[in-house]
Amino acid sequence: MTPTEIREIETLAAFANELADTAALQTMALFRSGLEAHDKGKKPNFDPVTAADRGAERAIRDHIAARYPDHTVCGEEFDDRIGTSPYKWLLDPIDGTKAFIVGIPVWATLIGLLRDGVPLLGVMDQPFVRERFTGTPFGTVADGPLGRRTLRTRTVPALSSAILASADPYNFTSAEDAERFHALRAKVRLTRFGGDAYFYCLLAAGQIDIVIDPGLDDYDVAALVPIIENAGGMITTWTGESPLKGGNIVATANATLHQTVLDVLVG
Amino acid sequence: MTPTEIREIETLAAFANELADTAALQTMALFRSGLEAHDKGKKPNFDPVTAADRGAERAIRDHIAARYPDHTVCGEEFDDRIGTSPYKWLLDPIDGTKAFIVGIPVWATLIGLLRDGVPLLGVMDQPFVRERFTGTPFGTVADGPLGRRTLRTRTVPALSSAILASADPYNFTSAEDAERFHALRAKVRLTRFGGDAYFYCLLAAGQIDIVIDPGLDDYDVAALVPIIENAGGMITTWTGESPLKGGNIVATANATLHQTVLDVLVG
Repeated sequence: MTPTEIREIETLAAFANELADTAALQTMALFRSGLEAHDKGKKPNFDPVTAADRGAERAIRDHIAARYPDHTVCGEEFDDRIGTSPYKWLLDPIDGTKAFIVGIPVWATLIGLLRDGVPLLGVMDQPFVRERFTGTPFGTVADGPLGRRTLRTRTVPALSSAILASADPYNFTSAEDAERFHALRAKVRLTRFGGDAYFYCLLAAGQIDIVIDPGLDDYDVAALVPIIENAGGMITTWTGESPLKGGNIVATANATLHQTVLDVLVG
Repeated sequence: MTPTEIREIETLAAFANELADTAALQTMALFRSGLEAHDKGKKPNFDPVTAADRGAERAIRDHIAARYPDHTVCGEEFDDRIGTSPYKWLLDPIDGTKAFIVGIPVWATLIGLLRDGVPLLGVMDQPFVRERFTGTPFGTVADGPLGRRTLRTRTVPALSSAILASADPYNFTSAEDAERFHALRAKVRLTRFGGDAYFYCLLAAGQIDIVIDPGLDDYDVAALVPIIENAGGMITTWTGESPLKGGNIVATANATLHQTVLDVLVG
């Protein structure tokens, strides 16, 4: 990488952190405020969308449009804006809207940046906890109550020692997917639910070994790829393909564990 | 209440908050530190106990013994200490040890105080988030990232509008208990997992309408009773009895909703 390329990535990473600050003003103003949730009705379960989601994504989009008007921007709440630049932002203003509505501080703002279709950097921000994860080609760092730390995934000796996490066991709407998940769950030491994007960041932090979710969208995944890969982890679909289009997603701490997990998921 | 009684409760509540500070020094030193978890083997699932649990309870006990040597003290990790005073402390140094091990900041330190067997005050502390809930006869307050707030439960128009929360769907080890839980889950708007004691505090805060868990211990419940009841909520066993011995526990936002939920749980 040339010094110019390094500076460009550093500038974009700093800007992505600014975007997270901008979103946090919107989300924190409405978190635990008694706002009404409306059902979008797009998904089989309750799928709330709130003024906080829309306000945060609007604020991020305005910020990008002002600074980088030629960048492409895609997000959960509004139509895609197609730009001429090789850069594309993928936004999930509130990943874990159910957690947001319930008031438990494990939802997150996800900001991913692709260059020519390849994930370049990602930010996961939890403004109530004041914890933020940033993944770039220079590494994955966490900033939060424990200070600033560079993250690495850990190595477990066997699947039976592994910790597995998933957002919600009832998100597996296909019986076959549920069966595969439970086959994996039966082989690990401990399974934890209720974390959304936070779990993927904790995998990067060496706390969790496997995170698995069905039916994710591209904007759920884009920010997490740099966070996981630059900490030593792997993230793919359940069949080992690129996670960038979303779908059934699995992240693990390293390539060896990943293959072991894929073998269980293939069944 | 006489001014002397009021002052005594205020002094004890301030002391309970000191105990939470003391415990936080122990838990925060080990949170996300890569500590090893050991399986106590007492429960059907993985039941980790860590140096953090023991260190925090030891610190709280030492603090109580120094200030109130005649108080009774019971906790999760050590033998009961029986005192001559009408006051009894019930301690769970880390409620949600699995959350602690996974690194997700929804575990809590629970400190409950009974007088003559009646819950007098309770503290729930989450030191990574820096959020603390305190319930006393003067009300339930939250101190945290949103400042200091007095809490009240909310009223939902019907069970179908209610938000339900529970620690983990696989904690229901009896098939009959699981069936009753799922009967309730089928009737509500939204169910969230992965919160432990935090969910009961969010019920006090008017974010959640029903929290339900099987097989709780007395030290899981004692601190939560004053937090819930002084915010307008109810907490009992599934058969409507005192929750103080633990067991299958249900908390709701008010007496009307409570009866509706008990009717579903009786089946």
